[in-house]
Amino acid sequence: MSEFVKHRQDSAAVLAVVGLIIVTILSVWKLKQFKYRLIHETGVAIFFGMVLGVMVKYLSPEQGEDSEDVCSCVGLNSTPHTLMVNITSVTSSKLCPLSPLGETFDPEVLFNLFLPPIIFHGAYTLNQRRFIQNLGSVLTFAFLGTVITCVIIGACVYGFTRLMVLLGQAADGDFLLTDCFLLGAIMSATDPVAVLGLFSELHVDPDLYILLFGESVLNDAVAIALTHAITSYSLMGGGHTFDTSAFFLSAGYFIVVFAGSFLLGFIFTVITALISFHPLPNPLLETSLFFLLSWSSFLATEATGLSGIVAVLFCGLSQARYTFHNLSSEAKARTRQLFEFFSFLGEVFIFSYMGYVLLTFPHHVFKALFICGAFLAVFVSRACNIYPLSFLVNLGRTAKIPRSTQHFMVFAGLRGAVAFALAVRDTSTEVRRATLTTTLLLVCSTIWLLGSATGPMLRWLDIRVGVDADENPEDLSSDQVATGRPDTMGLWHRLDYKYLKPVLTHSGPPLTSSLPQCCGMLARLLSSPHVCEDQEQLQETEADGTSIELDKVETQQESTGGNTEPEQQEDLLEGDLGLGTSPAPASEA
Amino acid sequence: MSEFVKHRQDSAAVLAVVGLIIVTILSVWKLKQFKYRLIHETGVAIFFGMVLGVMVKYLSPEQGEDSEDVCSCVGLNSTPHTLMVNITSVTSSKLCPLSPLGETFDPEVLFNLFLPPIIFHGAYTLNQRRFIQNLGSVLTFAFLGTVITCVIIGACVYGFTRLMVLLGQAADGDFLLTDCFLLGAIMSATDPVAVLGLFSELHVDPDLYILLFGESVLNDAVAIALTHAITSYSLMGGGHTFDTSAFFLSAGYFIVVFAGSFLLGFIFTVITALISFHPLPNPLLETSLFFLLSWSSFLATEATGLSGIVAVLFCGLSQARYTFHNLSSEAKARTRQLFEFFSFLGEVFIFSYMGYVLLTFPHHVFKALFICGAFLAVFVSRACNIYPLSFLVNLGRTAKIPRSTQHFMVFAGLRGAVAFALAVRDTSTEVRRATLTTTLLLVCSTIWLLGSATGPMLRWLDIRVGVDADENPEDLSSDQVATGRPDTMGLWHRLDYKYLKPVLTHSGPPLTSSLPQCCGMLARLLSSPHVCEDQEQLQETEADGTSIELDKVETQQESTGGNTEPEQQEDLLEGDLGLGTSPAPASEA
Repeated sequence: MSEFVKHRQDSAAVLAVVGLIIVTILSVWKLKQFKYRLIHETGVAIFFGMVLGVMVKYLSPEQGEDSEDVCSCVGLNSTPHTLMVNITSVTSSKLCPLSPLGETFDPEVLFNLFLPPIIFHGAYTLNQRRFIQNLGSVLTFAFLGTVITCVIIGACVYGFTRLMVLLGQAADGDFLLTDCFLLGAIMSATDPVAVLGLFSELHVDPDLYILLFGESVLNDAVAIALTHAITSYSLMGGGHTFDTSAFFLSAGYFIVVFAGSFLLGFIFTVITALISFHPLPNPLLETSLFFLLSWSSFLATEATGLSGIVAVLFCGLSQARYTFHNLSSEAKARTRQLFEFFSFLGEVFIFSYMGYVLLTFPHHVFKALFICGAFLAVFVSRACNIYPLSFLVNLGRTAKIPRSTQHFMVFAGLRGAVAFALAVRDTSTEVRRATLTTTLLLVCSTIWLLGSATGPMLRWLDIRVGVDADENPEDLSSDQVATGRPDTMGLWHRLDYKYLKPVLTHSGPPLTSSLPQCCGMLARLLSSPHVCEDQEQLQETEADGTSIELDKVETQQESTGGNTEPEQQEDLLEGDLGLGTSPAPASEA
Repeated sequence: MSEFVKHRQDSAAVLAVVGLIIVTILSVWKLKQFKYRLIHETGVAIFFGMVLGVMVKYLSPEQGEDSEDVCSCVGLNSTPHTLMVNITSVTSSKLCPLSPLGETFDPEVLFNLFLPPIIFHGAYTLNQRRFIQNLGSVLTFAFLGTVITCVIIGACVYGFTRLMVLLGQAADGDFLLTDCFLLGAIMSATDPVAVLGLFSELHVDPDLYILLFGESVLNDAVAIALTHAITSYSLMGGGHTFDTSAFFLSAGYFIVVFAGSFLLGFIFTVITALISFHPLPNPLLETSLFFLLSWSSFLATEATGLSGIVAVLFCGLSQARYTFHNLSSEAKARTRQLFEFFSFLGEVFIFSYMGYVLLTFPHHVFKALFICGAFLAVFVSRACNIYPLSFLVNLGRTAKIPRSTQHFMVFAGLRGAVAFALAVRDTSTEVRRATLTTTLLLVCSTIWLLGSATGPMLRWLDIRVGVDADENPEDLSSDQVATGRPDTMGLWHRLDYKYLKPVLTHSGPPLTSSLPQCCGMLARLLSSPHVCEDQEQLQETEADGTSIELDKVETQQESTGGNTEPEQQEDLLEGDLGLGTSPAPASEA
């Protein structure tokens, strides 16, 4: 009978969350109806999560909070296969620290379920051309910037913990240097979900959006790798001395994580391409396969211990550029809508859950100075990250990042789901609990305060909003941004056009003409069947024209820095992934 | 660090399932490409689930299966709030009987997640007019039929258990009468998922489809209520004597479950109507709210201990008839596609999971005679259910259920997810484990054998396939089926047109004209704002016409048995929920 009770409890817990999401959606809608745009979905979601937390905490039957019994199984000599624990009158809902919702919702499963569609949707709606154009700056901010942030937060918080020791608020060994750097690593990444939620609706300047979103997605990987590295480092030695070998091990680990995730993401794109070459019988099957394969890239990467977020980002980017175009038009619309739906619900859900945990986690450790130090450190580190690195990347950019954009980038350091996920994974020690508490407070305040202040700040800094993501060519040519050197862009274009497109889509020149003669068999094997057919039909008429056009493209690229007319046309035709990139009027406020 | 390991294990488990679904989809697609239609998705899904089960069972590291240690916590005096168990070197994956997938996938959560969209999609694609026309027959088969099935299976299996005692294969007290009736209750319900999966593609005769699908959905509720009643009954007394009061308690319980679920389903329709009256800003919000509210009807009903399947069926039927039409056309398409997607994946998933459990459940109890008895009983009881009840309902039907259809209904007694869910909930005793084993075998064989034989059987019995769900009016009027008495149909139509439509949709006459004068305030409060506006604008011109038409409709209905021209037109306009009910050519083979 207890199974029936458990089922009812589970249903009630899911119902509570669904109700929470419904209430959040309705509230956001009502707020928007009254033109009150200050507070965003994410903030409202956290608020209602907290309301649910309060209700669960104070309306559920009282339980003795402190009756913890550690009961060693002394009768156990071997490793048992099944362990049955006799706990009379203890229902399972009392066993979990995040009860009763935590019993039903394992944070791990949630992130497995909701994070990938959010990132995927982000990658889909990303303007790929701009992303590639800004790649150098994005990578600088994401890699170098995150490491700087981590180090500065760590150092700053360590200073505050020394102050705590001086003031007698903590003992000498309570906070090690590695604990502080761990907090730095956890808090180093800005959050793609918050950035997407906040800026995709405002239609800010596309370059600013790309810089912020690209950074926020890529730095998650850096933060995850850093967290892992610091954890292993502190397990290897103490927290007070510097260990060179451990440091280089961590650096190597980091490179492996990044390259591996990139590769796995791309492998899943290739798999999708191989499957999607053959026309599927109906759009439902196409959408299902596309969705499941995209999700698999995340799961496979996480299962191997690499960073699923990085994999899913690259998988999303490459799918949007290549394999998406193999789908039928109905399947395209369905897939886009499906990711949008999941992304929307996932966003609301993750932030509600954060609000809920903030109020129901029973072992919060509030250390006032520690929290103050972290708050200060987050803003200081953000400034120390953006201003010097902007100066650095501006040296190589034709279109400099203006001062106002830099100010706004400093301001827009919202933290979110990934910081929470990293903090919630281990709450075994006092310091880790203090870290979770601090992280939750920081996430909520950055989202509420910075989120609400975004609109006024944009106006104050005089940054354009309501900009169409893909502007008209005249505007672009006068205002273009390119950090990639012309040779690199040409190389990229050749790789993209001559090899990737024929292998992954139905378009582009046949591989048999791109690859050397000796690879004829391989070329025929890898080519899309459609490309082969096309080639046979159009060999005389089209092949020459294609190569001429390609040469023209490359010549133009070298002179204009990678932003050519034919490529733009191609983007207008193929890159319409909900970006409004069709040749419509340029901007709407 | 163990959290990281757990996360990787979880990801790998989810990946395995996603891979399973991908492989199933690809196989089904390939099978269809080669025109091999004998085996359906559900059968293929079970097969690949079993393959995964074999791989997990034989490729995972060997563990001593029998090293079970019961370790009583003797040091425990009070009820602890948190219980920490020291199990050195035992990773959590070894604790669960369905490991390693079972650790990640709780069957309860799965059914909460996947079952509702499947039923909802079924309710959406149901031809409502035919369902209402066949309601009497459907209810007879679902209620009376399921009780008959349960009793006959119980009696038959009890006979076989007595035989086992005589042959010395079981002791006298091993199988009680209540155990046999419990198996009867679990196996009494035919499965909507299997029926939907099998027949929706074949386009069988619509009346046959409605009879089978309607029965299979409604009898789940009966089976759930019966299972619960028999479980409480056996907890109250022994299994050998008949207890009148317990019997009537069970009957009362059953009525409460059914009426309560119906009511809750309808309440959620009303909530959806109230929300969907106000135009939402974008289709994403509309679809999200519609989806979440529909799902809530299931969760709320399950949380109160009633039958979620019944609630979601009625909620789906009433939403499809009323509130769905309040959505914008883009939101309608999105919602339909979303349910289709979930339903498809859910179907594949549930059956894969069954196949997986069949091969990985470590405590199977195979009792050959018990299983044989159950197999025999299932077919005998199906015949004893369909033939007498068909005779009974044919007495009141204008279009009799033909002999061939009756034969096919006997044949099409596929068991599925609900039987599995009921059996898997409690595996604490030997008898319950034997029940689970028998149930799994029965489900798999009915789906494989009966599923594969469906096509040949339909041809052999000369039953039409490839029929358009909504036939042309001429065909219907000569071939119409009506079990509801003319007065009842008139009453239903008046209730539907005068009260439900104005309250739940933008169409129909304003409530101010339907309700008596004294209820003016209430009428204005309940009416859709659009209906009110319409009324004010069109009061002079339209009101008279409406009432005249309504009178005409009612007069016609009494003469033709509820199948009138205006209602048909209305269905053609409003009932197009993927049924192909647009005024296209009647049938396509």
